[in-house]
Amino acid sequence: MSTSNGFTWIDGTLVDLAPDECERLLGTHAVGRIAWNGPAAPTVLPVNFIVADSEIWFRTTARSSLSREIDDLPVTFQVDEVDEFTRSGWSVQVHGTAHIVYDAARLPRTWPGIETWPAGAHALHVVIEQREITGRRLLPS
Amino acid sequence: MSTSNGFTWIDGTLVDLAPDECERLLGTHAVGRIAWNGPAAPTVLPVNFIVADSEIWFRTTARSSLSREIDDLPVTFQVDEVDEFTRSGWSVQVHGTAHIVYDAARLPRTWPGIETWPAGAHALHVVIEQREITGRRLLPS
Repeated sequence: MSTSNGFTWIDGTLVDLAPDECERLLGTHAVGRIAWNGPAAPTVLPVNFIVADSEIWFRTTARSSLSREIDDLPVTFQVDEVDEFTRSGWSVQVHGTAHIVYDAARLPRTWPGIETWPAGAHALHVVIEQREITGRRLLPS
Repeated sequence: MSTSNGFTWIDGTLVDLAPDECERLLGTHAVGRIAWNGPAAPTVLPVNFIVADSEIWFRTTARSSLSREIDDLPVTFQVDEVDEFTRSGWSVQVHGTAHIVYDAARLPRTWPGIETWPAGAHALHVVIEQREITGRRLLPS
Protein backbone atom coordinates (compact mmCIF):
# COMPACT_ATOMS: atom_id res chain seq x y z
CA MET A 1 0.00 0.00 0.00
CA SER A 2 1.31 3.45 -0.81
CA THR A 3 -0.01 6.95 -0.44
CA SER A 4 0.14 9.55 -3.17
CA ASN A 5 -1.64 12.87 -3.63
CA GLY A 6 -3.93 12.09 -0.75
CA PHE A 7 -5.09 8.78 -2.23
CA THR A 8 -4.24 5.43 -0.79
CA TRP A 9 -3.34 2.84 -3.34
CA ILE A 10 -3.42 -0.88 -2.90
CA ASP A 11 -0.42 -2.05 -4.84
CA GLY A 12 -0.96 -4.12 -7.95
CA THR A 13 -0.24 -7.74 -8.69
CA LEU A 14 2.29 -8.92 -11.28
CA VAL A 15 1.28 -11.98 -13.28
CA ASP A 16 3.19 -13.85 -15.97
CA LEU A 17 1.54 -13.94 -19.39
CA ALA A 18 1.16 -17.03 -21.56
CA PRO A 19 3.01 -16.95 -24.90
CA ASP A 20 -0.17 -16.64 -26.97
CA GLU A 21 -1.29 -13.65 -24.91
CA CYS A 22 2.16 -12.11 -25.41
CA GLU A 23 1.81 -12.61 -29.18
CA ARG A 24 -1.59 -10.97 -29.16
CA LEU A 25 -0.40 -7.94 -27.18
CA LEU A 26 2.60 -7.54 -29.46
CA GLY A 27 0.23 -7.06 -32.38
CA THR A 28 -1.61 -4.18 -30.72
CA HIS A 29 1.21 -1.64 -31.10
CA ALA A 30 2.93 0.10 -34.01
CA VAL A 31 6.08 0.96 -32.04
CA GLY A 32 8.35 -1.37 -30.10
CA ARG A 33 11.91 -1.20 -28.85
CA ILE A 34 14.83 -3.06 -30.30
CA ALA A 35 17.62 -3.73 -27.83
CA TRP A 36 21.01 -5.22 -28.52
CA ASN A 37 24.29 -5.57 -26.72
CA GLY A 38 26.27 -2.59 -27.93
CA PRO A 39 30.03 -2.31 -27.46
CA ALA A 40 29.72 -1.15 -23.82
CA ALA A 41 26.07 -1.44 -22.81
CA PRO A 42 22.71 -2.24 -24.34
CA THR A 43 21.24 0.10 -26.91
CA VAL A 44 17.46 0.52 -26.78
CA LEU A 45 15.71 2.30 -29.65
CA PRO A 46 12.04 2.61 -30.62
CA VAL A 47 11.13 1.37 -34.10
CA ASN A 48 7.99 0.89 -36.14
CA PHE A 49 7.31 -2.80 -36.59
CA ILE A 50 4.82 -5.36 -37.77
CA VAL A 51 4.18 -8.98 -36.93
CA ALA A 52 3.82 -11.19 -40.04
CA ASP A 53 3.63 -14.99 -39.89
CA SER A 54 4.52 -14.72 -36.17
CA GLU A 55 7.76 -12.91 -36.95
CA ILE A 56 8.71 -9.37 -35.96
CA TRP A 57 9.80 -7.18 -38.86
CA PHE A 58 11.11 -3.64 -38.93
CA ARG A 59 13.15 -1.41 -41.21
CA THR A 60 16.30 0.61 -40.78
CA THR A 61 18.59 2.79 -42.83
CA ALA A 62 21.75 1.43 -44.38
CA ARG A 63 23.93 3.79 -42.36
CA SER A 64 22.40 3.19 -38.90
CA SER A 65 24.26 1.76 -35.91
CA LEU A 66 21.49 -0.83 -35.88
CA SER A 67 22.38 -2.09 -39.35
CA ARG A 68 26.07 -2.25 -38.48
CA GLU A 69 25.65 -3.97 -35.12
CA ILE A 70 22.76 -6.43 -35.09
CA ASP A 71 22.98 -8.74 -38.09
CA ASP A 72 22.90 -12.39 -36.98
CA LEU A 73 23.25 -11.41 -33.32
CA PRO A 74 21.03 -11.89 -30.26
CA VAL A 75 18.53 -9.10 -29.76
CA THR A 76 15.53 -8.38 -27.59
CA PHE A 77 12.35 -6.75 -28.81
CA GLN A 78 10.19 -5.12 -26.18
CA VAL A 79 6.70 -3.64 -26.21
CA ASP A 80 4.77 -2.34 -23.27
CA GLU A 81 1.76 -0.31 -22.24
CA VAL A 82 1.58 1.75 -19.08
CA ASP A 83 -1.49 3.34 -17.53
CA GLU A 84 -0.31 6.00 -15.10
CA PHE A 85 -3.81 6.54 -13.73
CA THR A 86 -4.63 2.97 -12.72
CA ARG A 87 -0.93 2.18 -12.18
CA SER A 88 -1.17 -0.90 -14.32
CA GLY A 89 0.17 -2.16 -17.60
CA TRP A 90 1.95 -4.96 -19.38
CA SER A 91 5.30 -5.66 -20.93
CA VAL A 92 6.32 -8.27 -23.48
CA GLN A 93 9.81 -9.15 -24.55
CA VAL A 94 10.97 -11.36 -27.38
CA HIS A 95 14.45 -12.84 -27.32
CA GLY A 96 15.84 -13.93 -30.65
CA THR A 97 18.35 -13.36 -33.40
CA ALA A 98 18.19 -10.43 -35.80
CA HIS A 99 18.76 -10.95 -39.49
CA ILE A 100 19.04 -8.26 -42.11
CA VAL A 101 17.08 -9.50 -45.10
CA TYR A 102 18.51 -8.65 -48.51
CA ASP A 103 16.46 -11.15 -50.47
CA ALA A 104 12.89 -10.10 -51.24
CA ALA A 105 11.96 -13.77 -51.55
CA ARG A 106 12.46 -14.02 -47.78
CA LEU A 107 9.59 -11.59 -47.08
CA PRO A 108 6.37 -13.23 -45.86
CA ARG A 109 4.01 -14.16 -48.66
CA THR A 110 1.26 -11.95 -47.30
CA TRP A 111 3.42 -8.89 -46.94
CA PRO A 112 1.62 -5.85 -45.58
CA GLY A 113 4.68 -3.58 -45.76
CA ILE A 114 6.06 -1.62 -42.83
CA GLU A 115 5.27 2.05 -42.46
CA THR A 116 8.09 3.97 -40.82
CA TRP A 117 7.20 7.30 -39.27
CA PRO A 118 10.58 9.01 -39.72
CA ALA A 119 11.31 10.35 -43.19
CA GLY A 120 14.07 8.92 -45.35
CA ALA A 121 14.84 5.63 -46.98
CA HIS A 122 14.66 2.68 -44.61
CA ALA A 123 15.95 0.29 -47.19
CA LEU A 124 16.96 -2.57 -44.96
CA HIS A 125 14.42 -5.06 -43.64
CA VAL A 126 15.19 -6.79 -40.38
CA VAL A 127 13.47 -9.91 -39.09
CA ILE A 128 13.79 -11.39 -35.62
CA GLU A 129 14.08 -15.16 -35.48
CA GLN A 130 12.18 -15.72 -32.26
CA ARG A 131 13.60 -17.95 -29.57
CA GLU A 132 11.45 -17.04 -26.58
CA ILE A 133 8.54 -14.73 -25.79
CA THR A 134 7.70 -13.74 -22.24
CA GLY A 135 5.58 -11.09 -20.63
CA ARG A 136 4.06 -9.79 -17.46
CA ARG A 137 0.95 -7.86 -16.64
CA LEU A 138 0.62 -5.56 -13.68
CA LEU A 139 -3.01 -5.76 -12.62
CA PRO A 140 -4.59 -2.66 -11.13
CA SER A 141 -5.40 -3.13 -7.50
CA MET B 1 5.37 10.23 -47.63
CA SER B 2 3.18 7.26 -46.81
CA THR B 3 -0.49 6.50 -47.18
CA SER B 4 -2.61 4.97 -44.46
CA ASN B 5 -6.33 4.67 -44.00
CA GLY B 6 -6.92 7.06 -46.85
CA PHE B 7 -4.75 9.82 -45.37
CA THR B 8 -1.45 10.88 -46.81
CA TRP B 9 1.26 11.49 -44.24
CA ILE B 10 4.36 13.55 -44.73
CA ASP B 11 6.98 11.61 -42.81
CA GLY B 12 8.45 13.14 -39.68
CA THR B 13 11.90 14.46 -38.97
CA LEU B 14 14.25 12.94 -36.39
CA VAL B 15 16.33 15.43 -34.40
CA ASP B 16 18.93 14.79 -31.72
CA LEU B 17 18.15 16.19 -28.28
CA ALA B 18 20.56 18.18 -26.12
CA PRO B 19 21.50 16.57 -22.79
CA ASP B 20 19.55 19.11 -20.70
CA GLU B 21 16.41 18.46 -22.74
CA CYS B 22 16.96 14.71 -22.26
CA GLU B 23 17.22 15.27 -18.49
CA ARG B 24 14.01 17.28 -18.49
CA LEU B 25 12.07 14.64 -20.46
CA LEU B 26 13.36 11.90 -18.18
CA GLY B 27 11.70 13.65 -15.26
CA THR B 28 8.26 13.65 -16.89
CA HIS B 29 7.62 9.91 -16.52
CA ALA B 30 7.10 7.51 -13.63
CA VAL B 31 8.05 4.39 -15.60
CA GLY B 32 11.21 3.73 -17.56
CA ARG B 33 12.97 0.63 -18.83
CA ILE B 34 16.11 -0.86 -17.40
CA ALA B 35 18.15 -2.85 -19.90
CA TRP B 36 21.22 -4.93 -19.25
CA ASN B 37 23.25 -7.50 -21.09
CA GLY B 38 21.81 -10.76 -19.86
CA PRO B 39 23.58 -14.07 -20.37
CA ALA B 40 22.41 -14.43 -23.99
CA ALA B 41 20.69 -11.20 -24.97
CA PRO B 42 19.59 -7.93 -23.41
CA THR B 43 16.83 -7.95 -20.83
CA VAL B 44 14.46 -4.97 -20.94
CA LEU B 45 12.05 -4.45 -18.04
CA PRO B 46 9.83 -1.54 -17.05
CA VAL B 47 10.41 -0.11 -13.56
CA ASN B 48 9.14 2.79 -11.51
CA PHE B 49 11.90 5.34 -11.07
CA ILE B 50 12.74 8.81 -9.90
CA VAL B 51 15.47 11.29 -10.74
CA ALA B 52 17.16 12.75 -7.64
CA ASP B 53 20.27 14.94 -7.80
CA SER B 54 20.48 14.07 -11.52
CA GLU B 55 20.69 10.36 -10.74
CA ILE B 56 18.20 7.67 -11.73
CA TRP B 57 16.96 5.56 -8.84
CA PHE B 58 14.66 2.57 -8.77
CA ARG B 59 13.88 -0.36 -6.49
CA THR B 60 13.84 -4.09 -6.93
CA THR B 61 13.23 -7.21 -4.90
CA ALA B 62 16.08 -9.17 -3.38
CA ARG B 63 15.24 -12.25 -5.43
CA SER B 64 14.90 -10.62 -8.86
CA SER B 65 17.10 -11.41 -11.87
CA LEU B 66 17.80 -7.70 -11.88
CA SER B 67 19.35 -7.79 -8.41
CA ARG B 68 21.46 -10.81 -9.31
CA GLU B 69 22.68 -9.55 -12.66
CA ILE B 70 23.21 -5.78 -12.70
CA ASP B 71 25.30 -4.75 -9.69
CA ASP B 72 28.35 -2.72 -10.81
CA LEU B 73 27.66 -3.53 -14.47
CA PRO B 74 26.88 -1.39 -17.52
CA VAL B 75 23.18 -0.75 -17.99
CA THR B 76 20.96 1.40 -20.13
CA PHE B 77 17.89 3.20 -18.89
CA GLN B 78 15.34 4.18 -21.50
CA VAL B 79 12.23 6.35 -21.44
CA ASP B 80 10.08 7.30 -24.38
CA GLU B 81 6.77 8.78 -25.39
CA VAL B 82 4.90 7.83 -28.53
CA ASP B 83 1.91 9.57 -30.06
CA GLU B 84 0.28 7.16 -32.49
CA PHE B 85 -2.07 9.82 -33.86
CA THR B 86 0.51 12.43 -34.87
CA ARG B 87 3.14 9.74 -35.44
CA SER B 88 5.65 11.56 -33.31
CA GLY B 89 7.46 11.09 -30.04
CA TRP B 90 10.77 11.09 -28.28
CA SER B 91 13.17 8.61 -26.74
CA VAL B 92 15.93 9.16 -24.19
CA GLN B 93 18.54 6.65 -23.14
CA VAL B 94 21.05 6.85 -20.32
CA HIS B 95 24.16 4.70 -20.42
CA GLY B 96 25.84 4.10 -17.10
CA THR B 97 26.71 1.67 -14.36
CA ALA B 98 24.16 0.23 -11.95
CA HIS B 99 24.94 0.02 -8.26
CA ILE B 100 22.82 -1.68 -5.64
CA VAL B 101 22.84 0.63 -2.62
CA TYR B 102 22.92 -1.04 0.77
CA ASP B 103 23.96 2.03 2.73
CA ALA B 104 21.17 4.49 3.53
CA ALA B 105 23.79 7.24 3.80
CA ARG B 106 24.22 6.95 0.03
CA LEU B 107 20.65 8.06 -0.64
CA PRO B 108 20.28 11.68 -1.83
CA ARG B 109 19.81 14.19 0.98
CA THR B 110 16.47 15.31 -0.41
CA TRP B 111 15.06 11.84 -0.73
CA PRO B 112 11.50 11.74 -2.06
CA GLY B 113 11.23 7.95 -1.91
CA ILE B 114 10.27 5.75 -4.84
CA GLU B 115 6.74 4.44 -5.18
CA THR B 116 6.62 1.06 -6.83
CA TRP B 117 3.32 0.03 -8.38
CA PRO B 118 3.67 -3.74 -7.95
CA ALA B 119 2.95 -5.07 -4.49
CA GLY B 120 5.63 -6.64 -2.36
CA ALA B 121 8.85 -5.57 -0.73
CA HIS B 122 11.23 -3.85 -3.11
CA ALA B 123 13.95 -3.65 -0.52
CA LEU B 124 16.91 -2.97 -2.78
CA HIS B 125 17.65 0.50 -4.06
CA VAL B 126 19.51 0.78 -7.34
CA VAL B 127 21.21 3.92 -8.63
CA ILE B 128 22.63 4.45 -12.10
CA GLU B 129 25.96 6.21 -12.26
CA GLN B 130 25.40 8.13 -15.48
CA ARG B 131 28.03 8.14 -18.20
CA GLU B 132 26.09 9.48 -21.15
CA ILE B 133 22.60 10.69 -21.92
CA THR B 134 21.28 10.90 -25.46
CA GLY B 135 17.90 11.29 -27.05
CA ARG B 136 15.98 11.90 -30.21
CA ARG B 137 12.68 13.50 -31.02
CA LEU B 138 10.54 12.55 -33.97
CA LEU B 139 8.77 15.74 -35.01
CA PRO B 140 5.30 15.39 -36.48
CA SER B 141 5.25 16.40 -40.11
